[in-house]
Amino acid sequence: MRQRPPLTPIVSVLPSTVPFVGPEAQERDRGRAFRARIGANESSFGPSPRVIARMAGIARDMWMYCDPDNHDLKVTVAGHLGVGVENVVVGEGIDGLLSLVARMYVASGDAVVTSLGAYPTFNFHIAGVGGRLVAVPYENDRESLDGLLAAVTKDKAPLVYLSNPDNPMGSWWEAAELIRFIEALPETTMLVLDEAYGELGPASALPPIDVSRPNVIRMRTFSKAYGLAGIRCGYAVADAQVIRDFEKIRNHYGVSRMAQIAGVEALADQDYLQSVVTRVAAGRRRIAEIAEANGLKPLPSATNFVTMDCGGDGAFALKVLQALLSRDVFIRKPMVPVLDRCIRVSVGLDHELDIFAEELPGALAAARGS
Amino acid sequence: MRQRPPLTPIVSVLPSTVPFVGPEAQERDRGRAFRARIGANESSFGPSPRVIARMAGIARDMWMYCDPDNHDLKVTVAGHLGVGVENVVVGEGIDGLLSLVARMYVASGDAVVTSLGAYPTFNFHIAGVGGRLVAVPYENDRESLDGLLAAVTKDKAPLVYLSNPDNPMGSWWEAAELIRFIEALPETTMLVLDEAYGELGPASALPPIDVSRPNVIRMRTFSKAYGLAGIRCGYAVADAQVIRDFEKIRNHYGVSRMAQIAGVEALADQDYLQSVVTRVAAGRRRIAEIAEANGLKPLPSATNFVTMDCGGDGAFALKVLQALLSRDVFIRKPMVPVLDRCIRVSVGLDHELDIFAEELPGALAAARGS
Repeated sequence: MRQRPPLTPIVSVLPSTVPFVGPEAQERDRGRAFRARIGANESSFGPSPRVIARMAGIARDMWMYCDPDNHDLKVTVAGHLGVGVENVVVGEGIDGLLSLVARMYVASGDAVVTSLGAYPTFNFHIAGVGGRLVAVPYENDRESLDGLLAAVTKDKAPLVYLSNPDNPMGSWWEAAELIRFIEALPETTMLVLDEAYGELGPASALPPIDVSRPNVIRMRTFSKAYGLAGIRCGYAVADAQVIRDFEKIRNHYGVSRMAQIAGVEALADQDYLQSVVTRVAAGRRRIAEIAEANGLKPLPSATNFVTMDCGGDGAFALKVLQALLSRDVFIRKPMVPVLDRCIRVSVGLDHELDIFAEELPGALAAARGS
Repeated sequence: MRQRPPLTPIVSVLPSTVPFVGPEAQERDRGRAFRARIGANESSFGPSPRVIARMAGIARDMWMYCDPDNHDLKVTVAGHLGVGVENVVVGEGIDGLLSLVARMYVASGDAVVTSLGAYPTFNFHIAGVGGRLVAVPYENDRESLDGLLAAVTKDKAPLVYLSNPDNPMGSWWEAAELIRFIEALPETTMLVLDEAYGELGPASALPPIDVSRPNVIRMRTFSKAYGLAGIRCGYAVADAQVIRDFEKIRNHYGVSRMAQIAGVEALADQDYLQSVVTRVAAGRRRIAEIAEANGLKPLPSATNFVTMDCGGDGAFALKVLQALLSRDVFIRKPMVPVLDRCIRVSVGLDHELDIFAEELPGALAAARGS
C-alpha cells in the first residue's frame, strides 16, 4: 500500500513523543529498582485499611461493568462536599477530566492560559484539541493571579488553569485571593481550579464551593491524600449545566467498578485521611530539615512534597537530580527557567526519607564536583 | 452572571441525554434488584481465580500510579498474539480506544460508516467529534460487508466500524470474507475491527493479524471472555505508526494499575479462559433450547449471548422485554427496525438461566395478552 488513512489536521501536527515517563520506565532503563519512590507525589502511606479490605473483597465482582452513572460515588462526593448530585462528575483521574474540559471549551486555535511550568498533562490535552497555550511565568514561586488574569483578557481565552495548592512548587493562595481572582474573570472564561492537593494544605486555601457560578470547575482526586493514584479516579464539582455538558462526551464506562467502590469507602474513612494529613505534615518538616542540613532552601508547601532551592542554576539542580537517581532515589524537578533551580521531593515512608537524607550529601558533592 | 463560557461548536449541538443506562440505574428506578443479570453480555463466570487472588493481593499497592506506558501488559499482549510491543496500545476498554480513534481520524463533518443497530458507543464517540454517521442496514441479521464497502466509497469515509463476532445479533463472518472486505477497502479508510467477542466464537472467524497493513485496527477486551468488564481494560493491535499516533492524544494515566496487573494475569491463565469458552458454549445451547421450547427462534451466536426472534414486530419484542424486566430478569434487545423483533439474552450462571426459563412463558403470555 502506498497511502494510509490520514490523521485529522489537529492530530497530525502533534508530536508522538510525550512527556510521560513513569518511575517504572526509569527502572527498566536503569535495570534496577529505586530504593526510595519519592518523586511522583504519591502517598506512600497507601489507602485506608478499610479501602484495601473492600477492594480485596470485591475483586471477584469485577465481571460486572461499572455503573455508567457513577451514581453511588457521586452521591457520596455530593454529601461530603454539601453540593447536589447534579453538581458532580466522576472521571478517570483529574487527567481524564482535563481531557474532557479541553474538548468542551477549546476549539482549534483558541488561546488557553496556564502558568509556565504548571501541570504538563493539562498542556498535553490542550495541544490535543489544537489549543494555543499561553503560559504565564510564576512570580516568587507562586502562580501569578494577576498575570493569569491579564493573559486571559489579552488573549480572550475561553479556559484558564490554576492549581491550588500548586504543583511543582507546593505554594498556595488563600481563599480570599482566589475569590478575588474568580470574581475578576470574564464570565465567558472557564476556570479549572485543580485542587488535587486540597486535603493536604490549610483549609483556608480552599474557597467555599459555589456551584451557582457557571465558570468555575473544581477538581479533586483520590490519587493524593487518599492514596489511590493507581485506581484512576477523580471528580469535578461545578454548576449543574456544566456537569450535564460533561455527559455529552465523557466515556461513560471509563471509571472502573473498583474505583467507584474504593472511592466511596475512602471518603467514608475520614479518620484515616486525617492520620495521613498529619503524617504528611510531619514528612514535610522532615524533608525541610534534611534540605536545611545540607544548605538547601525548602519552600513552604501545602502539598505532599517539598520543593527545595538547590542554590544554583537549573543545570546544577539537574545534576543533583541525576546524582540522586543514580543513587536509586526517585525524585523529580521543575524544568522551566527560575523554577528549575529546585528539586522536588515527595513525602515518603520514614525509611525512604532516611535514604534521601543519607544520599543527598553525596549527590550534592557529586553535582558540585562534576 | 448573565453569560457563561460557551461550549465549542461541536460539543454545543450534542444532546446531554445519553444512551447509557446500566442495570444499576434500572434497579434504582425499580426499587429492587434483578434476580438474573443476563443483559449486558458480561461474564457471570467471573475472572480467573488466579486473577481474583492477584487483584486482592495488590489492593494495598494502589497508592502507586499506573505505569503510563502500560509496559508489562503490552509485552504480554504482544507475546500472546505474536506481534511486536510497538503494535499494541492499551486503553480504558474498547470504549476508550474508540473515543481516541474518532479524534484521530474524524474531523467535523466527515462521514463515518457503521451498521444500523451496531455498537452505540461508537456512534456516541463519532458524534462527539462532529462526525456524520452513515448507518448501513444489516442483511439477514449480519452486518453487510458489501453494503459497508459501498457506503465507504460513496461517502469517502475516513473510518468504518465492523464488529466480528457481532453485537447485538451474535452473527459473524468467516476470516476469508473479512480479508476480502479488508483488501477491497480504500487505502485511506481506517477499519476498526471490534473483536470484543473474538475469544468466544470459532477461531475461523478471526483473520490472521497483519500489522503491516496501516488501515486496520483490531480491538480486543478483557470485559467479555476474561470476565473483567469492571476493570475497564482493552487493547488495540495495529501498524506501529498507528500505535504511535494513539500516543499523541491518549490519556497516558487512564488505565488503572489494577487493570494493568489483572490483564497480565488473565492472559496467563488460558486454561481458565478455555473453561469459560466451554461454559459459554453450553450456556448458548441452553438459552437456545429455552427459546425453542417457547416457540422463539434463537439465532446462531459466536458470542456470550443469544439473540432470539420473538416472531412478531418490534413492539411485541419490546413487550416481552418489559415483561421479563418486570419479572426481575435483566436482558436487553436491539432497537432498530428488523433487528428489533428480537430480544438478547446473555449467558449467565445456571440458576440465572433457570429463572429465565421459568419467567419466559409468563412474559410471552403477558406480551401476547396486553
